[in-house]
Amino acid sequence: MPKGEGRKAVILLSGGVDSSTVLAMARAEGYECHAISFEYGQRHGVELEAARRVAAALGAASHTVVPVGLDRIGGSALTAEIDVPKAATPKGTIPVTYVPARNTVFLSLGLALAETLGAWDVFIGANAVDYSGYPDCRPEYIEAFEQMANLATKAAVEGSGRFSIHAPLIRMTKAGIIRTGLALGLDYSLTWSCYDPAPDGSPCGLCDSCRFRIRGFEEALGQQ
Amino acid sequence: MPKGEGRKAVILLSGGVDSSTVLAMARAEGYECHAISFEYGQRHGVELEAARRVAAALGAASHTVVPVGLDRIGGSALTAEIDVPKAATPKGTIPVTYVPARNTVFLSLGLALAETLGAWDVFIGANAVDYSGYPDCRPEYIEAFEQMANLATKAAVEGSGRFSIHAPLIRMTKAGIIRTGLALGLDYSLTWSCYDPAPDGSPCGLCDSCRFRIRGFEEALGQQ
Repeated sequence: MPKGEGRKAVILLSGGVDSSTVLAMARAEGYECHAISFEYGQRHGVELEAARRVAAALGAASHTVVPVGLDRIGGSALTAEIDVPKAATPKGTIPVTYVPARNTVFLSLGLALAETLGAWDVFIGANAVDYSGYPDCRPEYIEAFEQMANLATKAAVEGSGRFSIHAPLIRMTKAGIIRTGLALGLDYSLTWSCYDPAPDGSPCGLCDSCRFRIRGFEEALGQQ
Repeated sequence: MPKGEGRKAVILLSGGVDSSTVLAMARAEGYECHAISFEYGQRHGVELEAARRVAAALGAASHTVVPVGLDRIGGSALTAEIDVPKAATPKGTIPVTYVPARNTVFLSLGLALAETLGAWDVFIGANAVDYSGYPDCRPEYIEAFEQMANLATKAAVEGSGRFSIHAPLIRMTKAGIIRTGLALGLDYSLTWSCYDPAPDGSPCGLCDSCRFRIRGFEEALGQQ
């Protein structure tokens, strides 16, 4: 029996390549998948439409879109009036597209939904290989969040279960992620990556997120 | 020199007795205080007006109100169509006013603001004595959050500092909290506690939060 059979899971879904692949993987493991997305004043709000398409196409049991006013806090090129860089960010530098504590905020809301639904499994598409050097994508961070989650919640204190934060992509390359999704039948044309779409709605092709996507597909398809 | 002198701090401020006292304490320690409050679909939205009054009266350097759609998630008498109990909750029971992962969501957003401002200190009015038995008010939870925060953030990874989550009330009685605030000149008539105000805007006097407030004042003033 697949390990997710009979279990509910919450999937953080941005509508990009990584989180869409995670949803496909969790579905393949048999989980009843509840997707959660965030409207946080991101300049690429178009990704929410991609999230809706992907949740529907992959048979998510529900899809909750939660508004979070990260734009009131600012501090990032994705939420404030700071330009998105169009050159690759040097290795070892955290770029201005970093949103302060974003994964912590999103995982917290995912945890809230999990507790409300009676789910013990939360999936996130964090990746520490072909990524932008964000600190909240590293395995030690995910472990620390899981530990905290099991002290934070009524469900963990009273209940018989334990929350698991799953980051199945964390050590995969972008090409490996895409090959996994293709093998599961994921249609990546439904997904969206660009941080800074043009006024006509087309991806810029130059931001970090576009660069990782393009290179990932080149590598994944070149090796097939 | 007071230990907060020349340092910025973020204060989670609901506008109730506890968080208002924390703001008064942090101000007395010399911190430049940046208050943050949350509009989360709470039925007692009137507490945000109290938070604004308290932030202004205590000289907060800024006050940010962040919308967070916890009402999209539900699961609590404070955010969903569940009645607020009007009898005291038995000891050892977590009541239906518990909001799944609320302090985790709020601390995460406080952390985001701290990182954006360049602050290393986040204050929360969590209390594990005269409280409602919420798991995210316990010292071990606060410690786990602090540990996670120092792995989550660009500031902690690149910077020279370390985030501290301060919960100065955690082992105080409600009467002790009120005596501390009074000694610092806090005007508690500015604050708001009731979870379930009447249509005319008056506190119900019967919910857990009203009960703790009333008993706290009786004890604090009886002992002066």
